Amino acid sequence: MKTKSTSFRVRFPVFLFVTQLVIVALYAAFVTYDEHADARFQNNRTNPMDNTVYRYYPVFTDIQFMIFIGFGCLLAFFRFYGFGGMVFNFLTATFAIQWAILVQGYFQFSHEGKIHLGLINLIYAEFACAVVLISFGAVLGKTSPLQLLVMALLEVPVFVVTEWFVLKYLKINDAGGSILIHLFACYFGLGVTFVLYRPCLNEGHAKETTSYHSDILSVMGTLFLWVFWPSFNSALTLNGDDQHRAILHTFLGLSASTLTAFALSVMLNKNGKITMADVQNVTLAGGVTVGASVDMMISPAAAYALGVIGCTACMLGYKYLSPFLARRFRIQDQCGIHNLHGLTGLISCAAGICAILMANEEIYGPSLYEIFTHRAPVEGDPKLQELQMLIPGLQPGLGRTAREQALFQVAAVFSTIGVSALGGILTGFVLKLPYLAPPSDDFCFDDELFFDVPPDYDSPLKFNNTITSEDSAA
Amino acid sequence: MKTKSTSFRVRFPVFLFVTQLVIVALYAAFVTYDEHADARFQNNRTNPMDNTVYRYYPVFTDIQFMIFIGFGCLLAFFRFYGFGGMVFNFLTATFAIQWAILVQGYFQFSHEGKIHLGLINLIYAEFACAVVLISFGAVLGKTSPLQLLVMALLEVPVFVVTEWFVLKYLKINDAGGSILIHLFACYFGLGVTFVLYRPCLNEGHAKETTSYHSDILSVMGTLFLWVFWPSFNSALTLNGDDQHRAILHTFLGLSASTLTAFALSVMLNKNGKITMADVQNVTLAGGVTVGASVDMMISPAAAYALGVIGCTACMLGYKYLSPFLARRFRIQDQCGIHNLHGLTGLISCAAGICAILMANEEIYGPSLYEIFTHRAPVEGDPKLQELQMLIPGLQPGLGRTAREQALFQVAAVFSTIGVSALGGILTGFVLKLPYLAPPSDDFCFDDELFFDVPPDYDSPLKFNNTITSEDSAA
Amino acid sequence: MKTKSTSFRVRFPVFLFVTQLVIVALYAAFVTYDEHADARFQNNRTNPMDNTVYRYYPVFTDIQFMIFIGFGCLLAFFRFYGFGGMVFNFLTATFAIQWAILVQGYFQFSHEGKIHLGLINLIYAEFACAVVLISFGAVLGKTSPLQLLVMALLEVPVFVVTEWFVLKYLKINDAGGSILIHLFACYFGLGVTFVLYRPCLNEGHAKETTSYHSDILSVMGTLFLWVFWPSFNSALTLNGDDQHRAILHTFLGLSASTLTAFALSVMLNKNGKITMADVQNVTLAGGVTVGASVDMMISPAAAYALGVIGCTACMLGYKYLSPFLARRFRIQDQCGIHNLHGLTGLISCAAGICAILMANEEIYGPSLYEIFTHRAPVEGDPKLQELQMLIPGLQPGLGRTAREQALFQVAAVFSTIGVSALGGILTGFVLKLPYLAPPSDDFCFDDELFFDVPPDYDSPLKFNNTITSEDSAA
Repeated sequence: MKTKSTSFRVRFPVFLFVTQLVIVALYAAFVTYDEHADARFQNNRTNPMDNTVYRYYPVFTDIQFMIFIGFGCLLAFFRFYGFGGMVFNFLTATFAIQWAILVQGYFQFSHEGKIHLGLINLIYAEFACAVVLISFGAVLGKTSPLQLLVMALLEVPVFVVTEWFVLKYLKINDAGGSILIHLFACYFGLGVTFVLYRPCLNEGHAKETTSYHSDILSVMGTLFLWVFWPSFNSALTLNGDDQHRAILHTFLGLSASTLTAFALSVMLNKNGKITMADVQNVTLAGGVTVGASVDMMISPAAAYALGVIGCTACMLGYKYLSPFLARRFRIQDQCGIHNLHGLTGLISCAAGICAILMANEEIYGPSLYEIFTHRAPVEGDPKLQELQMLIPGLQPGLGRTAREQALFQVAAVFSTIGVSALGGILTGFVLKLPYLAPPSDDFCFDDELFFDVPPDYDSPLKFNNTITSEDSAA
Repeated sequence: MKTKSTSFRVRFPVFLFVTQLVIVALYAAFVTYDEHADARFQNNRTNPMDNTVYRYYPVFTDIQFMIFIGFGCLLAFFRFYGFGGMVFNFLTATFAIQWAILVQGYFQFSHEGKIHLGLINLIYAEFACAVVLISFGAVLGKTSPLQLLVMALLEVPVFVVTEWFVLKYLKINDAGGSILIHLFACYFGLGVTFVLYRPCLNEGHAKETTSYHSDILSVMGTLFLWVFWPSFNSALTLNGDDQHRAILHTFLGLSASTLTAFALSVMLNKNGKITMADVQNVTLAGGVTVGASVDMMISPAAAYALGVIGCTACMLGYKYLSPFLARRFRIQDQCGIHNLHGLTGLISCAAGICAILMANEEIYGPSLYEIFTHRAPVEGDPKLQELQMLIPGLQPGLGRTAREQALFQVAAVFSTIGVSALGGILTGFVLKLPYLAPPSDDFCFDDELFFDVPPDYDSPLKFNNTITSEDSAA
Repeated sequence: MKTKSTSFRVRFPVFLFVTQLVIVALYAAFVTYDEHADARFQNNRTNPMDNTVYRYYPVFTDIQFMIFIGFGCLLAFFRFYGFGGMVFNFLTATFAIQWAILVQGYFQFSHEGKIHLGLINLIYAEFACAVVLISFGAVLGKTSPLQLLVMALLEVPVFVVTEWFVLKYLKINDAGGSILIHLFACYFGLGVTFVLYRPCLNEGHAKETTSYHSDILSVMGTLFLWVFWPSFNSALTLNGDDQHRAILHTFLGLSASTLTAFALSVMLNKNGKITMADVQNVTLAGGVTVGASVDMMISPAAAYALGVIGCTACMLGYKYLSPFLARRFRIQDQCGIHNLHGLTGLISCAAGICAILMANEEIYGPSLYEIFTHRAPVEGDPKLQELQMLIPGLQPGLGRTAREQALFQVAAVFSTIGVSALGGILTGFVLKLPYLAPPSDDFCFDDELFFDVPPDYDSPLKFNNTITSEDSAA
């Protein structure tokens, strides 16, 4: 069966060429090297090995691997939508990073009218990209690549402004990005999918199925994310013991959520078997749940417990909440991002707030004021000078108490959820424009619509017949 | 065909919940951060970049990749057991690492009643996990996940005690873990499979077959292990030239064994073609064979020769020894771990002993006593002071001669083999308990028993019919 | 259908055993450790962490991943030649690296009759290996493994001599290897395939097709290469800001070429769909195009523009030039290496020359003479002393002007193309020897000829019938 889409053939390249032209013009006008990438700033006192590139590059490749390969494989779990999952992830990620470099550059890395580009910008941009890809999970298989690009185009600025506002004005602790990345991405994605509601899909869709190989591919994606998640959670922590703890906690959290996921998967399966979708998704819950307190002195056992709790919430979410949201609230959350990023993100924020409330100098020593920079005494406070005797480079802070810091965290959670849900809903309305070539219900979860498929691709028609004949036989 | 397993549905989650509860309680009671992960230990003389996390993290991610993805893909080579190979590897590895952190912590990392946790513990625990996964290879497809967890539960303590005894009392050189990891894992696994003997399987099993895609997946696993093996073999060597040599030797050994494996595969194949199982397994022999002498000054050519010798032994083992062991000694070694880890491990130990006997100050300079720490003069020996002039930090040793060190190596080999085989046999008897839900002979190598399989999964029944009709036609 | 090949069964192992014997003898006679891997050279002033192994190891593993896994998956895109693509890549790469260590060692790393081996040699050897693997792309599916080994045996020395000549006498700037690696590999491969011309294949071949899974596997290969390409392009740049820029430019170039590839793929496809072959190949064009100027101060926008231009040339090459070359010039370029490495390489060289002509002290500061070492003043020039005040370690150069340097670059391009094309043609004649067991036209792109295939392998006969019946139906 041939499916032509002449409108897509014109609009998709036009969109890409126009945005690329604008982006390259903006790069030419505003983007220059930062001082670690610019030859002019190097002099005889510069030690080349002190360049920030050596601090960030290993973490950068790990995150690249997660974004392009981990997400790509994980999203390729549909039997007839493996190309779509992997290739649209590639497309969307590339576009989102390019665009985020500019938008974040404007808000966070610009001096004297120029955006200063270094490897650190790329890491920030990959975090923004992760946000887009998580939201993508809510609408996987139901959107054209043009819709995905427009979603990235709109989501990135909303995210960047939120990030900038929260970091600059609320000044929160969120090393693993549980608030800014996971909650934002989740509620934005839910907002989009709410507007893009397709009543037919609530009945299930013939092509909404996996195959033996796509399930294996998706587990590989999970494992890629699992293995590199400590890099994701520790990328932007302070050097030294903070980063060390972030790695340990992420590992323990993932490890605990993996075992819990296996136990619950068998327990909740009606035949007492393992459900592959649980292995693919729920095992990762611990990585999100430890996020907000990942660099704090929460103790290894607490990281473990967070993994168990996050995983349980995530699993129950998949089992009971997602179908409920789809039926009652028109929220068709294709990959269950509300379970893997929303519920776990909320638990993570709560845990982070507890950790903040319990943090004191007895547990942390004077480095308390390095991790919780905003609790450091203000400029001029004699306590500051005392602390600076112990930690020479300590910066003056805002003199916040633990309770004040906790309140700011709460404010950040609510404002992030509000902005992201609203942004998602508005974006959803833009994506509804027929101009963006959304697939018809029949062609959801089907690679044939956007790809030249190889001869062994099971045509949906053939497959439907098989399904029907099996059903009628049963 | 539906296969219900109500007992498994209860016992598997119960086992996991109970062990998780115990583990988290033990973590809460006994596990704290080590000084590189604890905020209290940081002061104004601590340089964050000197934290051990930067020394170990890159190697840690490489080993994680090997454990979770390399092993996972490699073990997914069966046509109907791809989920089992990859997912049970994930489950078992996660459990083994959690458990090993505690047991090794008790024996090797505890001070004042507390286990001090840092990234280094995780690396040690991943080595213990590798031991369990290698043993797993012997019983792949013939064990329930519950049996695998019990095996990990029992194997880890036996391994850790052996490791502790050998390192503390015999004090051997074994940088690549040829004795402690490969030999132990091999003979433990053989002990288990000896007890779990299934007479029917000696005739071959209809489902014991590969598919085009599972073969490719398994080769990917091989390549993942191949690429990161130098990290595995060099993780715990001394910094500097020792680690440098370990990387070079591992690469050369693997490289030589790869070419030899191709040559022998074609030569020994009755049609003169390449056998994929050889590409998947025998190419890796060199990584094990160089293990025991990997950081010594054996010369690049010797590393190359070790790769060739190890590969030849491994290949002949697959071709002639494994069928013989299965027929005569009831040892059904599913993945041939005796060839890839046992025979090569023994050759590696022999090579290590030769390298020890030939080591002298002429070849190594004074750093001889850094690599072979137990050969350093004892405290008070005037020779020690002389050496300390050359190498300021040199620790006093035991004043062993090369020959004495070699004898201790031999003792370690025999005691490791003895303990592991015995431990494996006893573990095998525990695994025979019907409570652990072992699969029946018919359901070996079949994902349908423990997984909800997707619609395109070839049912074994259908497949059996095909096989039978083809056979009868032939 | 059984296909026996007794000649291959003898000749392939014999070739491997003989070459291995020679190689190990040469290693034994001539290869020793370099000073960073040799225990004797360590003394009490050696800081183990200053060992070069820490500078090169992370980059080395990234490149290993690209060579063995990235290339392997990318080349496994044929439906019936997945084993061949991945496994012959493994075989050829291993052989080429072993051999390159010796040949490059002789030309570049020998002192006092000994080749000094360190991790840096392995990186250089992997670049030589990349050259062989790119050339392999031109003849994929049409050559026996024996032919591939002979190709590697001949190509490596020709490449190494060219590299040595260009670096030693022409002294060019080519950090990403656009001239030495990509152009050389491309024209060598085209030379080989020109001689191995098979008229029948111009009509297309029944087995020259992909499958759903092989397409996905190949995209994974693309993503592996994409993610690690910055390591490839920056491996041998100067430490510090140069390496930093190389990473940024490679990322931006790849990113731009990816989006352009998607746009052009849809635009040029007759149904307005995405062609998977474009996603697999054309997205990578930017990595090559930025190569020659990757460490220079070309500005981020220029890196972006280079990605767009390279990608466009590459795409048009696939669409129009490759079929033309095959029809008119008997150049059957199986993977289109002329598009991905040739055209992009030429553009990269042109861009490099422009960047050289525009380089001045205003843009680079005094570090101009570190990047363009040959432009540094000659020994004795008072300007040199002046510069050495600013950059203490600056080495005297050749006092070349920008224009002179540009002319040397041009000379390098032409001589590299000439030598490689000639070398490729001569190698092609050697590969035509019937002794090397080339596959017959019927058995091109077919794993059954050289592999024991699993039972689910679609036999070409069965497949041919399907194709024929479909064709006759159409």
